[in-house]
Amino acid sequence: MTAPLSVNGARLRADLQALGDIGRGPGGGVSRTSFSVEDARARAWYQARCAEAGLSVEVDGIGNMLVSAPGHDTGVPAVWTGSHIDSVPDGGAFDGALGAMAALECVRRLHETAAPLRRPVRAVVYSDEEGNYTHLFGSSALARGFTREELDQLTGRAGDRFVDTFVAAGWNLDRATRTRVDPATIHSTVELHIEQGPHLHRLGHQIGIVTGIVGLGGGTITFHGRADHAGTTPMDMRQDALTAASALIVQFADIAASVSDRAVVTAGILTVRPGSTNVVPATATLSVDYRDPQLARLEALGAAIAASADAVARRHGVEVTFDVERPIPPAPLDEGIQRIVARSAAARGLTATPLPSGAGHDSQNMATLVPTGMIFVPSIGGRSHCPEENTDWTDVENGANVLLDTVIALARG
Amino acid sequence: MTAPLSVNGARLRADLQALGDIGRGPGGGVSRTSFSVEDARARAWYQARCAEAGLSVEVDGIGNMLVSAPGHDTGVPAVWTGSHIDSVPDGGAFDGALGAMAALECVRRLHETAAPLRRPVRAVVYSDEEGNYTHLFGSSALARGFTREELDQLTGRAGDRFVDTFVAAGWNLDRATRTRVDPATIHSTVELHIEQGPHLHRLGHQIGIVTGIVGLGGGTITFHGRADHAGTTPMDMRQDALTAASALIVQFADIAASVSDRAVVTAGILTVRPGSTNVVPATATLSVDYRDPQLARLEALGAAIAASADAVARRHGVEVTFDVERPIPPAPLDEGIQRIVARSAAARGLTATPLPSGAGHDSQNMATLVPTGMIFVPSIGGRSHCPEENTDWTDVENGANVLLDTVIALARG
Repeated sequence: MTAPLSVNGARLRADLQALGDIGRGPGGGVSRTSFSVEDARARAWYQARCAEAGLSVEVDGIGNMLVSAPGHDTGVPAVWTGSHIDSVPDGGAFDGALGAMAALECVRRLHETAAPLRRPVRAVVYSDEEGNYTHLFGSSALARGFTREELDQLTGRAGDRFVDTFVAAGWNLDRATRTRVDPATIHSTVELHIEQGPHLHRLGHQIGIVTGIVGLGGGTITFHGRADHAGTTPMDMRQDALTAASALIVQFADIAASVSDRAVVTAGILTVRPGSTNVVPATATLSVDYRDPQLARLEALGAAIAASADAVARRHGVEVTFDVERPIPPAPLDEGIQRIVARSAAARGLTATPLPSGAGHDSQNMATLVPTGMIFVPSIGGRSHCPEENTDWTDVENGANVLLDTVIALARG
Repeated sequence: MTAPLSVNGARLRADLQALGDIGRGPGGGVSRTSFSVEDARARAWYQARCAEAGLSVEVDGIGNMLVSAPGHDTGVPAVWTGSHIDSVPDGGAFDGALGAMAALECVRRLHETAAPLRRPVRAVVYSDEEGNYTHLFGSSALARGFTREELDQLTGRAGDRFVDTFVAAGWNLDRATRTRVDPATIHSTVELHIEQGPHLHRLGHQIGIVTGIVGLGGGTITFHGRADHAGTTPMDMRQDALTAASALIVQFADIAASVSDRAVVTAGILTVRPGSTNVVPATATLSVDYRDPQLARLEALGAAIAASADAVARRHGVEVTFDVERPIPPAPLDEGIQRIVARSAAARGLTATPLPSGAGHDSQNMATLVPTGMIFVPSIGGRSHCPEENTDWTDVENGANVLLDTVIALARG
């Protein structure tokens, strides 16, 4: 028995460090929000890495990048592996980047060793995973596609219209509506990712075998009150939109606990108009992100948030409106792939444990099309979406090797 | 006995309408925040009105404008009357503008009728009354002045540094530190203003005799939590800065009521970082504006807000920091001027009532230097700092005539 093929850990580390420098701010955080200048630089850098390795890159209408080794366009359904290279504002250097660069490393390694496989292995980078414009934008475009009317509705974190930014960055709107992939061309998909939560690190496990991804609902809630002078309007005559929004936000922990101990509810953005120290807020708009591993509980969570918002609005004499995004149901992952991951970890002497993913991933869209798996490695302290996001280089290499084993098993099987 | 001199109501109305069109937005609101392009346009328009009337304008280092009729520089202390022409974002067409244009109308009318007076009457426009950079900026500069270090600290609503915007707009920073006025050159000041509250309109009174101006405290409070992934971080492991800020804001009504039935507390601005749907907020900064007519109660209000913020921070496991502005104490207004206003209203057959001002005004700074009075006219529905801010043209003309009577009485007495 020969030793298994392994990734080039030094090359993977150098790639992750180089990519992490693109969009890095003075505080160490990484800002590569999708379709920003930094995102474009990261895409160009990634394509240069592929060209350097003799790999070709195909870019679809919404910006998903699909990488192939020469001569692998055999008509045989391919094994896909990848993640994303966009980030949240002031995020970390591993979320998405790890899975994207480890996938490229796998394809590179298989190409340079001319490993004999039944199926081609393709690396993929999904566009706008972090939802600058909408959750899991790129994989949603692959799985169900977007109409021009849907694209017209999308706005970014900075308040820009997607279509304006997209066209200004040189992309084509007609192509953006023709992105659905034929599932018959894909055999399976696997994604390596940092856990982004505290469990693996706390339990001392090296590999997480992801059993499924929690469901995700969200959108925005706007309270509409009345702008009044902050000095002359008695407290009991106000229709203060921000006070109403605050009264809702303070209930989120109890609302989550009422549904399950895994449920979470978050307001990450809050915008107040007109926004002056001496004017009672006329409107307050908050983003809502809620998650649970079970569909029925996810739906109960959405209903409880809406009911609380209505009750708060009545109590504060303001109006409330909702802009609800289509919920993404919980996605169980393929059990066969979970078994392959477990075998690989065991063969390499790594401790592994099954766990669900609290974060959304493009894999949940791909799982609606083909057998899909995910592999987690520990996040130090569970930190993610922040400059402190970190993973030991040993864990990075372990995860990439388990990913390589898994894609090889799928490509041979 | 001859009929008293009256203002030209049609001219005043035309001026207010023309000024109201500068910075007017599509929703009807007026945005002329200080040192903006719209503020500069309003200043130029005002100076053109003065030139047209044969009046000269002196502009001090912080942008206060002081208008004189020719030949009135006699060395005799002058009666000042005026208000401001800057506005809050998306505010109304009467706040400040009424008192500024009625004052110009008085000086114009006295000049064109060559009314015989012992003292000169000068119209004044105070700079940045609405506190884009700091509360009552222009009159504070007259009353106490600013050091270069203090100016360096000021930031605007849009996050810009005052010194950057000021210099870019062509102003001189050295002159901005030399703005204190010699009180010996001023006999008294009077300001006409809309009430901005509901009392006159509700009681059916035409003129408000302002007894004093409420004290004002404020600044910003920042909660410092920890950015974490919104999907993977359990609710009980979060240090959510926005949840803490919300828990404070919902207490403001009770905090105000605990001090007095006239106390008000407002959060008009709230900024969340990093500001992403799927990231637990790391910091939340809110503006706080609190007011009360009595100094001891004002101080109790400030202390209660700080104590609540500390308690909230402890409860939510976050840090809290304060950036407190120097409180402006309540300002009683001159009783002699109150009697003149009452006599004028009675002589013109107008109903009048004494009342305090819930809003801050430059008159409270001028009252620290010389005898100062204010006259209010009704705000329809008490609305202010919003596009719906409105006052009947009859009330506009009544107020301007009482102002004219008052400055004549002061300039003759």
